[in-house]
Amino acid sequence: MTAFADRLAALVTRRESQIVLGLDPDPLRLWAVAEPAFAGEGTPSERTARAVSAHCLALIAAAGPACVAVKPQLACFERLGAPGIAALGDVVAAGREAGLMVIADGKRGDVPVSAAAYAQALAGVTPGPAGEIQGLGADAFTASPLLGIDALEPLIATGAGVFVLVRTSNPGAADLQDLELAGGEALWERIARIVDDLGVARDCGLADVGAVFGATAAEHLSRARELMPRAIFLLPGVGAQGGRVEDLAPAFAPGPAGGLVTASRSIADAHAANGRGAAEAARAEAERLREVAWSLA
Amino acid sequence: MTAFADRLAALVTRRESQIVLGLDPDPLRLWAVAEPAFAGEGTPSERTARAVSAHCLALIAAAGPACVAVKPQLACFERLGAPGIAALGDVVAAGREAGLMVIADGKRGDVPVSAAAYAQALAGVTPGPAGEIQGLGADAFTASPLLGIDALEPLIATGAGVFVLVRTSNPGAADLQDLELAGGEALWERIARIVDDLGVARDCGLADVGAVFGATAAEHLSRARELMPRAIFLLPGVGAQGGRVEDLAPAFAPGPAGGLVTASRSIADAHAANGRGAAEAARAEAERLREVAWSLA
Repeated sequence: MTAFADRLAALVTRRESQIVLGLDPDPLRLWAVAEPAFAGEGTPSERTARAVSAHCLALIAAAGPACVAVKPQLACFERLGAPGIAALGDVVAAGREAGLMVIADGKRGDVPVSAAAYAQALAGVTPGPAGEIQGLGADAFTASPLLGIDALEPLIATGAGVFVLVRTSNPGAADLQDLELAGGEALWERIARIVDDLGVARDCGLADVGAVFGATAAEHLSRARELMPRAIFLLPGVGAQGGRVEDLAPAFAPGPAGGLVTASRSIADAHAANGRGAAEAARAEAERLREVAWSLA
Repeated sequence: MTAFADRLAALVTRRESQIVLGLDPDPLRLWAVAEPAFAGEGTPSERTARAVSAHCLALIAAAGPACVAVKPQLACFERLGAPGIAALGDVVAAGREAGLMVIADGKRGDVPVSAAAYAQALAGVTPGPAGEIQGLGADAFTASPLLGIDALEPLIATGAGVFVLVRTSNPGAADLQDLELAGGEALWERIARIVDDLGVARDCGLADVGAVFGATAAEHLSRARELMPRAIFLLPGVGAQGGRVEDLAPAFAPGPAGGLVTASRSIADAHAANGRGAAEAARAEAERLREVAWSLA
């Protein structure tokens, strides 16, 4: 099977897009298309999960053509219980049918034996006496490096893309990630070195082990690129969190697929700002982001 | 409602136990009681989830009387898809019916808006047009501090116990957690200070914000207790990972509920070592651990 980085690079080129559509559905803020599902049969959890699924599918249909991947936020599905996990399966399938890569955003990190179970859940299969159980089938996922290299290895061994948290987009990121180590570098720089060590350049020149790097920390992007020349950067924080696509040029230094710009609320809620219909506004905002990012690559 | 720390302290005293029964079910290593479920109706996922549920319920029935809490490892349920989440709900209910606290082990950590979604999933409710959706209903859960204080706050705001990863039990923990900071202390010591800052002493003298501290790093336990005098320590790594209950005395300095000793494989797989039936062996091993830990408190 073609390596994740090579598949992604080919898709970025074909679609001329580095935009990742974040799917963070909030039951209180779904598009109108979700409303009939709320009134259907079943438990609150089942009805809400169907509404969330309808919302996400409409969002993928509207904004997907301008994107290269979808990124479901696992927390938003998990809070709906078992029906939410079924909805997550629907959303993954819809993303794939739309020709998009799927990046599961769960920021998992655990001791090796449990990391292996997460690997099975996200991008593997679980063997057992009743037969193999397919995992979520994500092309890539986010992961936390706090537990160290042995905890990342089972995740990387899946062959999926692994986006390791290096510098996140929230203000609190500074509390630990920016701490200065005894040698003078910041903790995030040390994590960046680990990401670089774990990644192997594929045919496209990029590695399957990437980095989550907040667009809100754009002042550090050149340094991050220096430390991780082969890593694909997943760049959250554009829009609602204050990051600007225009500041992300260093991410694209190794090629167009070197940076993936994630946007969630700025696309899904675009209609609130410009008064158009939700789908039309989402399509326009995703296309606007695509053009700005592509012009930097 | 009584604070988590006070409820836990009362339960530790009543049950004379600080043992947490880890539930990390592997479909390839379930007790014989799970076998009929594998042969039942449904998809591999549904059958395996029922088998996992049967195994965990039998384990709780056998070892629960010597314990104060159950700790399901979320990855082991998530890898079974939506039926696995339903099984997790069964296991939480069974733990509660057995009079045990429930500690959801997912090591979650995300930006504030997503942390709030995890808070709803683990120990809150999710509002929506179809009505409120109940979360897992855990009494406590594990969390990662890598994203900083603003990312921990929504988790702490649930009122549940939050066990923050301070020093984990795997060898790779040293890669980041033991790094020396510019001021001379280790990263884990800095995390310990944050845990101490975030916790408030309840009536029992302990706080709802606790620390995961690997029993494999017992040489640091006295220092950890100095930095976090009010924190409840969740102590994994006893047994299969090499930690010894006998080395954990500093955890219990503030009182019997100051340390919770988690054990998973050493209890569930005790029959492999001593040749007795699975339930009998698990009961005996949990009781042995209970006695050793209680003698230290």
